Amino acid sequence: MNPLPEHLLRPSVRQLQPSLIRQVANAAIGRQDIIPLWFGEPDVPTPAFIREAAKAALDEGSTFYQPNAGLPILRQTIVEYMNALYGTQFGIDNIIVTASGMTGLMLAGQAIVAEGDTIVTHAPTWPNLPSVQNILGATVIRVPLTLRDNRWHLELDRLFDACDSRTRALLINSPANPTGWTLTDDEQQAILDFCRKRGLWLVADEVYNRIIYDRPYAPTFADKIVEGDRALIVNSFSKSWAMTGWRLGWLTIPRDLLTTFEMLTEYNNACVLAATQMAGVVALREGEPFIRESTARYKASLDVLLPFLATLPRVRCPVPDAAFYTFFAVDGMRDSLVFAKAILAQTGVGLAPGRAFGPEGEGCLRLCFAQEPALLQQALDRLEPMLR
Amino acid sequence: MNPLPEHLLRPSVRQLQPSLIRQVANAAIGRQDIIPLWFGEPDVPTPAFIREAAKAALDEGSTFYQPNAGLPILRQTIVEYMNALYGTQFGIDNIIVTASGMTGLMLAGQAIVAEGDTIVTHAPTWPNLPSVQNILGATVIRVPLTLRDNRWHLELDRLFDACDSRTRALLINSPANPTGWTLTDDEQQAILDFCRKRGLWLVADEVYNRIIYDRPYAPTFADKIVEGDRALIVNSFSKSWAMTGWRLGWLTIPRDLLTTFEMLTEYNNACVLAATQMAGVVALREGEPFIRESTARYKASLDVLLPFLATLPRVRCPVPDAAFYTFFAVDGMRDSLVFAKAILAQTGVGLAPGRAFGPEGEGCLRLCFAQEPALLQQALDRLEPMLR
Repeated sequence: MNPLPEHLLRPSVRQLQPSLIRQVANAAIGRQDIIPLWFGEPDVPTPAFIREAAKAALDEGSTFYQPNAGLPILRQTIVEYMNALYGTQFGIDNIIVTASGMTGLMLAGQAIVAEGDTIVTHAPTWPNLPSVQNILGATVIRVPLTLRDNRWHLELDRLFDACDSRTRALLINSPANPTGWTLTDDEQQAILDFCRKRGLWLVADEVYNRIIYDRPYAPTFADKIVEGDRALIVNSFSKSWAMTGWRLGWLTIPRDLLTTFEMLTEYNNACVLAATQMAGVVALREGEPFIRESTARYKASLDVLLPFLATLPRVRCPVPDAAFYTFFAVDGMRDSLVFAKAILAQTGVGLAPGRAFGPEGEGCLRLCFAQEPALLQQALDRLEPMLR
Repeated sequence: MNPLPEHLLRPSVRQLQPSLIRQVANAAIGRQDIIPLWFGEPDVPTPAFIREAAKAALDEGSTFYQPNAGLPILRQTIVEYMNALYGTQFGIDNIIVTASGMTGLMLAGQAIVAEGDTIVTHAPTWPNLPSVQNILGATVIRVPLTLRDNRWHLELDRLFDACDSRTRALLINSPANPTGWTLTDDEQQAILDFCRKRGLWLVADEVYNRIIYDRPYAPTFADKIVEGDRALIVNSFSKSWAMTGWRLGWLTIPRDLLTTFEMLTEYNNACVLAATQMAGVVALREGEPFIRESTARYKASLDVLLPFLATLPRVRCPVPDAAFYTFFAVDGMRDSLVFAKAILAQTGVGLAPGRAFGPEGEGCLRLCFAQEPALLQQALDRLEPMLR
């Protein structure tokens, strides 16, 4: 058998690289002693009351095709959730249900990105964000975050300077994976103003909006945009409601584009299982106590983690503004992939190599602290000899 | 509020047209007396034993991220199903689970289609098949089916003559929506030989493979390809196991491309809910009696339908080889969309306008006969005055 020649693939797809996080995780297959802190995933299953709503829909026989835009009851519940939380005035035609935040990003890209465009974003970044744009034929310009006063920052001037006549969109992920970096309201307003002035699209990935420790939600573009703005906001049930496996999210869109996004949904996945959508309805309506408990638990873990890392002379760990990651530098670490594999081999603790988030992330490791504080402490005890 | 200017969208997306079937269906919203024969969907919910498998997975808390390629148990079950049915020798690395047949088509397109390519297919056709290629920047060349001896045919020479140096793939949907036209084994072999000779990809949509009335399965490319062939076969749980709403399918791929399709899955939807995948496992293992009963019931409906249509002088209805549609010509019908809306308004019967499947379909209507024979008879009684 001859291998298939590479030129048979879409040019942009030939360049794709497999996830380096998964490369580390694959090395753990078969081991029983792993403490997995590599993926961005809460450590508990979806709350039972959410699962029961899905089971009830299956019992009722809701197994047929559903509308492209999502069940009206879910779209209406999303509108009520956002308007109550943010004080906004969205209508049902501003909302389209997506088969995950990831799918929302792909649909957004398909809607607005053309071959040869540039998309400007910040880095290090979740690799999926640029990869979608690459698949669709765009070039992604990456503006590095900088460290100041032990926090991550984005110099907005550098972001704006990276935009030229070929630029189609700014792609913003705040709160950010992997850094936890989060825009202020003023910075968001400046970005929105810039997009308006230059006629650029704004694609905002806000899936970590509720994973924040000093207020109910992180600054959001949702309460700044007005109808007609060229803005697409990606959201997901994965993180806040511990629903990673369900693949359920939503896009907030200009209502002009509802038909466009219905068509794109039809040609990508058609719809989402009614049972999954009913789980989403219940999550939004009854999930606030779960969000409060989860973020309190993650905060307790962060309060274990940061003092520990501070005792390690080789480690510099910026304080994350939000999300459930620390992204810390390790002095003397030459190759984060090699080191993450060594850590796994010697301690059984799974971390994500910084390089997985682009060259800007080399020298760092990402640790997801959405874990029981006690289990996290156990992981830290194992990690200490390798990080000291 | 100013509407968003059209040039803000991806050029290929600006050309997309909403579904004409949905245009007819939208006219029925709020009516209680509709007999819906417009969508391609079995009339019964997913069998309870399949739903129970999903509920059990939810009870077990299987709500986390799953592997991009699908649960190993589902991939293995798909391999066993195909190898037992077709006498093939696929391995688990030939299979990737997709979040619907539709998603399988989108992933296949993303893998192999480049801007400026042409894709050659037959028509009339399910509009989603060319739309995916259009979104990705390809031009679709449509070769019309012809009618002979009251059956649809594809002249293979015309198909092959439509291929030139820009052609990337043949896109074949057999059994076909909307016509029920089905390739013979010899024709499939000729198409595969041509693709091999010319170095073309073959993308085969075989989601109606089990909906056939005189044998267990329709001719399949699966038992003709060998490892290394440039062939991608799209399958789905929607039709045969009455699982339209679940969004579950699979791709049969050259194992060389497993990593490529894992990455594309990561960047489109990441994975499928474990509960949905466990439903798929049970469907394949225990679903054969359901497939037999369903096809017997559809056959009974077809045996009501064809003699009825034969009594109508204005109607010419080719005998479908497979699938659950009749696609029949109505003499004197000028505009199938207008006529389908008039039929709906006057009779409450929902049919799909032929034009929804491209200009080659104008003059025809599509009727999905996956219905109880008694309900179908009621629909035909209502239709008769308008078709006579």
